Amino acid sequence: MTATFPQASDKHALEHGEVLAPRFDANGLIAAIATDADTGEVLMFAWMNAEALSRTLDTGEAHYFSRSRGELWHKGATSGQIQRIVEARIDCDQDCVWLKVRPQGDGGACHTGARSCFYRLIVNGKLVDRP
Amino acid sequence: MTATFPQASDKHALEHGEVLAPRFDANGLIAAIATDADTGEVLMFAWMNAEALSRTLDTGEAHYFSRSRGELWHKGATSGQIQRIVEARIDCDQDCVWLKVRPQGDGGACHTGARSCFYRLIVNGKLVDRP
Repeated sequence: MTATFPQASDKHALEHGEVLAPRFDANGLIAAIATDADTGEVLMFAWMNAEALSRTLDTGEAHYFSRSRGELWHKGATSGQIQRIVEARIDCDQDCVWLKVRPQGDGGACHTGARSCFYRLIVNGKLVDRP
Repeated sequence: MTATFPQASDKHALEHGEVLAPRFDANGLIAAIATDADTGEVLMFAWMNAEALSRTLDTGEAHYFSRSRGELWHKGATSGQIQRIVEARIDCDQDCVWLKVRPQGDGGACHTGARSCFYRLIVNGKLVDRP
């Protein structure tokens, strides 16, 4: 499967049009933010290629592109931490997607076992655990 | 001013240590997500270089790196949309910062005039305004 998206015809179309025209970077990737649809907490930050975005929208479950493994990544396929999409948004210049999700399985999103990847505060230049 | 940060000594230190050791990419940038500290809404996604991150933490106001202008960007310096930092977090592998902010000025964050850059839903493959 090869997913393709159109390019916006101009800046106005990009920022105000109804055409989904994601601007993938030189590596073919777009940024993605997943938040918990119920708590608003930011769960994780990851990347999507066109196929990952397309499958996310088609299936209602978050797919990303793993830069370390160089492959499509259906979040939760092995861990059970499937992310059901409640709402998907895109930003003004269409280079970042915001997914509001309901995490399945044990409810976590982070490979460390934490619920969110953002389990540390920056306080006076040091990191402090604060799940 | 040249801001520098240490590198994590190993994966455990990166993921569980108390040392802030951001992993800047090949362009010297780290991803940054700003959410509204009161509503939880994602306001914007941007990039920071080491100086932007350092100034953000030192001043309590969000600084980014503008890739289009190639320069440090004190958010709100001209628009008045200063972002006061309520809380700063970093993710497991320290390549993304999450800022909870209180937007000053007119309360907006987006150059289009919208409160959040994510003012469009993706619905059945089309974009729909939903501020």
